[in-house]
Amino acid sequence: MKLDDLPTPCLVLERPILQRNLDAMAQAVARHGVALRPHMKTAKSIDVARLALATPQARPSGITVSTLAEAEYFVGHGITDVLYAVGITPQKLEQVAKLNVAGASVMVITDDPEVASIIAAQPHPPRVLVEVDTGEHRGGVAPEDPALLDIAARLGQTLAGVITHAGHSYAGRSAQQMADIAEIERSGAVRAAERLTAAGLPCPIVSMGSSPTALHAANLDGVTEVRAGVYMLGDLFQAEIGTHGLGDIAVTVLASVIGHRPSQGQIVIDAGGIALSKDRSTEAAPHDWGFGLMLDLHGQRSFGHALVKRAYQEHGMVDLDPKLPAPDLPIGAKVRIAPNHICMTAAAHDRYFVVDGSDTVTAIWPRVNGW
Amino acid sequence: MKLDDLPTPCLVLERPILQRNLDAMAQAVARHGVALRPHMKTAKSIDVARLALATPQARPSGITVSTLAEAEYFVGHGITDVLYAVGITPQKLEQVAKLNVAGASVMVITDDPEVASIIAAQPHPPRVLVEVDTGEHRGGVAPEDPALLDIAARLGQTLAGVITHAGHSYAGRSAQQMADIAEIERSGAVRAAERLTAAGLPCPIVSMGSSPTALHAANLDGVTEVRAGVYMLGDLFQAEIGTHGLGDIAVTVLASVIGHRPSQGQIVIDAGGIALSKDRSTEAAPHDWGFGLMLDLHGQRSFGHALVKRAYQEHGMVDLDPKLPAPDLPIGAKVRIAPNHICMTAAAHDRYFVVDGSDTVTAIWPRVNGW
Repeated sequence: MKLDDLPTPCLVLERPILQRNLDAMAQAVARHGVALRPHMKTAKSIDVARLALATPQARPSGITVSTLAEAEYFVGHGITDVLYAVGITPQKLEQVAKLNVAGASVMVITDDPEVASIIAAQPHPPRVLVEVDTGEHRGGVAPEDPALLDIAARLGQTLAGVITHAGHSYAGRSAQQMADIAEIERSGAVRAAERLTAAGLPCPIVSMGSSPTALHAANLDGVTEVRAGVYMLGDLFQAEIGTHGLGDIAVTVLASVIGHRPSQGQIVIDAGGIALSKDRSTEAAPHDWGFGLMLDLHGQRSFGHALVKRAYQEHGMVDLDPKLPAPDLPIGAKVRIAPNHICMTAAAHDRYFVVDGSDTVTAIWPRVNGW
Repeated sequence: MKLDDLPTPCLVLERPILQRNLDAMAQAVARHGVALRPHMKTAKSIDVARLALATPQARPSGITVSTLAEAEYFVGHGITDVLYAVGITPQKLEQVAKLNVAGASVMVITDDPEVASIIAAQPHPPRVLVEVDTGEHRGGVAPEDPALLDIAARLGQTLAGVITHAGHSYAGRSAQQMADIAEIERSGAVRAAERLTAAGLPCPIVSMGSSPTALHAANLDGVTEVRAGVYMLGDLFQAEIGTHGLGDIAVTVLASVIGHRPSQGQIVIDAGGIALSKDRSTEAAPHDWGFGLMLDLHGQRSFGHALVKRAYQEHGMVDLDPKLPAPDLPIGAKVRIAPNHICMTAAAHDRYFVVDGSDTVTAIWPRVNGW
């Protein structure tokens, strides 16, 4: 099967780029001697997870997930060491317990004293990390917050450590800025861990991470594991903030040309707001890539600066590069769209069509979407 | 099963509101004596389709779909009169032919002369509508464009009429503006049809539509059918532009509270950018609803003006209404989010949990997502 034969829109995954991204992260993490816990929220694929774990120099310790559907899927495929890194609710504990009673080790996180007490009172409680806020202000208690010790104490035997996520690293625009944020993230997590230890509470795990801080951190002293996910596949936003280059985007959306608007300098493709997502994260970046950058069937930038500027449900309107002659793209011709934010884009698709540096599809890898 | 027992995030569909919306559209269309061809791109559900077709006063003529996955799904469930209303590519004709050879009547659309010739040369060509541009400038040829007759003539026996979509009605902000755009849409489609007829070409179908123009059109003379989809479920954007009221939103996202940020006046919910979509269409509307409006478990507006202001992949940050006391929402409490743009929001979910004016789930209706 060739790319040109695939139904559109669909996801194309370039395995050599994926492998290069995995190797780069493994090397970055190996510098520090900490364990990598790949976050599968982006790829949502057992095939990708197996490759991400096959980097011994990064001492991968298991995986991170963003939904219980992912947890069930990966446990079902034999990956039992799983961290569910979204604040747990009491109602979700039964689902976690089922996995753990069956032999998995699914850890959860909380920043709430009441929830901590509820977890500790469960017949089959999971291990728990206390969520620490090191500046993102999305979840977690501050490292110096008195609540930190209260939550940890309530967790009792279920306490397994602390976790933080410097999602505000995405506001960074240079390697130095990322390194600075990584240091805030590291020092905050370590400070929280020190407070637990000083209070006589166990803290075997000190978990931090985001792709930018994992790659750019200068020092990870005191940290035991790093989480990152988007680095595997990459996207235009990550390229903008310097996590990788434009050529390191491993997943694109294959689309067909379905219309010509020569008077508007546009073509129409069958990848719209669902296939690409409505994510506009590059809007605030140095370069605004619209809803995505149009590449040719081979993933090359033959069309210059051709951006998806409008995204209807199933129609994408591509502004062609006015500096180039109009490309020869009859109705039905295939193009590929580099995504703005791959976590969002991939979520609409149930599989990857995998290629290895040619137009031949060598594998189809399913994804676990939903909840 | 009660709403409070459901795993979150998920979609809740209020059947009485859906039925009210279906009845309102049926009445609006019945005024004109034209047929309604419900667009299933929003609901993507056979259960909703059956209700949408059970409005005899609107003389429903079949359905509209936005993907071939929808076409296959609805044909497989016995709805054989289907219009695939996204520009066809030659590569997709085989899939359409398979459905038609098996007894369906799937129509397609084109605005391209080459494609018209290719269709006419097929062993099992579908019936085809020529796409006419009445101002949206997304697809179609202008009613006066010489290409219109060229395309129609090339289609030969496969020509079934003309189709237009006044998607620019979404820029309207009042019933009068919608009616004005509806008249541009109607007159353009009818003019195109007149040109075909004057040239001796058949034009049995004159299809127009969008939820706003279908509801607000003052006159549909010369039109044979109207398409509309989002009216069934409704959303904040449609409420903003006056298609319906806030109380007419039939589908909401059920979410759990997973965090408290009292110092920020926020709570965190487990519905983020995937569960809600990153659609920001209300940004340009009179009222910007962020990524959605938070309602209580019963769908009531108990929290005032509480908006999802940030949407991470699986986290939504809700700005609480500063004019109201902080609501009693412990971790795990359920809320519902009225969506910005239901076509986008629903696309991430594989089913509806249906309620009938109470908290009891009375049915689960699957959706057909993807391509």
